[in-house]
Amino acid sequence: MWMAELSKRSGLPVPTIKFYLRDGLLHPGEATGATRARYDESHVRRLRLIRALAEVAGLRLDAVRTILAAVDDESLPLHQVVGSAHTQLSVKESAPAPSAEATQRVDQLLRSWKWRVAPGSEHRTALARALDTLAALDHPVSDELLGDYADAMASVARREVSVVRGQDPETATERAVIGTVLLEPVLLVIRRMAQENVSARRLRGPRTRTY
Amino acid sequence: MWMAELSKRSGLPVPTIKFYLRDGLLHPGEATGATRARYDESHVRRLRLIRALAEVAGLRLDAVRTILAAVDDESLPLHQVVGSAHTQLSVKESAPAPSAEATQRVDQLLRSWKWRVAPGSEHRTALARALDTLAALDHPVSDELLGDYADAMASVARREVSVVRGQDPETATERAVIGTVLLEPVLLVIRRMAQENVSARRLRGPRTRTY
Repeated sequence: MWMAELSKRSGLPVPTIKFYLRDGLLHPGEATGATRARYDESHVRRLRLIRALAEVAGLRLDAVRTILAAVDDESLPLHQVVGSAHTQLSVKESAPAPSAEATQRVDQLLRSWKWRVAPGSEHRTALARALDTLAALDHPVSDELLGDYADAMASVARREVSVVRGQDPETATERAVIGTVLLEPVLLVIRRMAQENVSARRLRGPRTRTY
Repeated sequence: MWMAELSKRSGLPVPTIKFYLRDGLLHPGEATGATRARYDESHVRRLRLIRALAEVAGLRLDAVRTILAAVDDESLPLHQVVGSAHTQLSVKESAPAPSAEATQRVDQLLRSWKWRVAPGSEHRTALARALDTLAALDHPVSDELLGDYADAMASVARREVSVVRGQDPETATERAVIGTVLLEPVLLVIRRMAQENVSARRLRGPRTRTY
C-alpha cells in the first residue's frame, strides 16, 4: 500500500508517519522509486503499537523506543517483551526513592505471596513509594488488605494474560499495554461500586446506631 | 487552642484556614474577644477532612462543599455520606455522555451481580464511558472479565469498608476518601505484578514455541 492508505489504515496523519520513519521507530517501506515506497501489514501493526504506547498509555518517545527495541529483539522471550512494556508504564521520572523500610516490606510481601517479580522492577519501587505516601498521611495499610489485593489480582490475571498468548510480539505488546492502561479505570470504578454495594448493606440504619 | 496551634495541628497555613472560615467550609471558633477565637478538636478534624478532599483527592471546592453538606446533614445515614463523597470522586465535568448500548450493558451487569448501586450514580456513567472507549479502540472487554473484576473487588470491599464502621461521619468520610484515592495506585501496581507473575509462568519458553 502507499503512504496515503497507510495513513488511513493506521489513523495517523502522514507527517506523523514520516516523523516515525525518520526517527527509526518505523521500518522503511520497499522503495519503488526516488520518493515512493510501498508499505505492508507489518507497518500497520507497528503504527498501531506506537499509537497504543504514545497516545493511549501516554509514554514518552524514549520509553516507546525502549519497548520497540524489546519487540524487535528476537532473542527475548515474549514474557520479557511484555514485561518491558509494563516496566515502562511504571517508570516515574522524578519521583523520590522509597524508604528502605517500605522497600523491604515489598520484598517480604512478594516472597510470602510466592510471586515472581524481577528484583529491580519499577513495580516494586512504585508499590514501596505508595506505601510511604499512605504512611505519611497517617493511613497505613495492613498486610491483610495487601494480601486481599494480591489474591484478588491473581484471580483476574489469568484471564487478562490469556488474551496475549499465541500472538506475535507486536500484537501481544499492543494488547498488553492497551489492556493494562484502559482496563485500569474499569477495575477502579467496579471497585467503587463494590464499596457502595457493601456500604449500603453494612453501614445502613440511622446514624445514632452506626457510631 | 488558638489559630497558630490549629495551623500546626492541621498542617495548613493560617491564611488557608481563614479562607475556609470566611467561605463557611470551617465552622467559627468560640469568640474570646474582637479578633481572637478558640478552636477545638472538631476544627482539627474538619480541616483534615477538607485537606483529604482538596489536596489528596484533588476535588474542586464546590465538590468539597457538597460532601461537607452531606457530613453535616444529620438526617443522612452514614453510608449516604460516604456515598456522596464517592460520587463526587467520579464526577467528570466535561466528559461526553456514554452510549445507550454501554449504559444498558452496565445496568444488566449490575443486575446480574445483584449489586446495589444508585440508579443515577456517576459510577454507572463512568463505567459505561470506559466501555465505550475500549470498544472504540477495538479492544472490547468480555462479560466474563468484568465478572472476574466484580468478584475480585467484592472480595476486597468487605475489609476496605470495615475501616469506616463505628467512626463519626467526618472521620469515616476522610478514611473512605483517602482509602479510595490512595489505595488505587496500590491496587493497580499489585495488578501489574500479578500480570508479570502470570506472564513469567505462562508465556515462558523461546518465542518459536510461543507463537
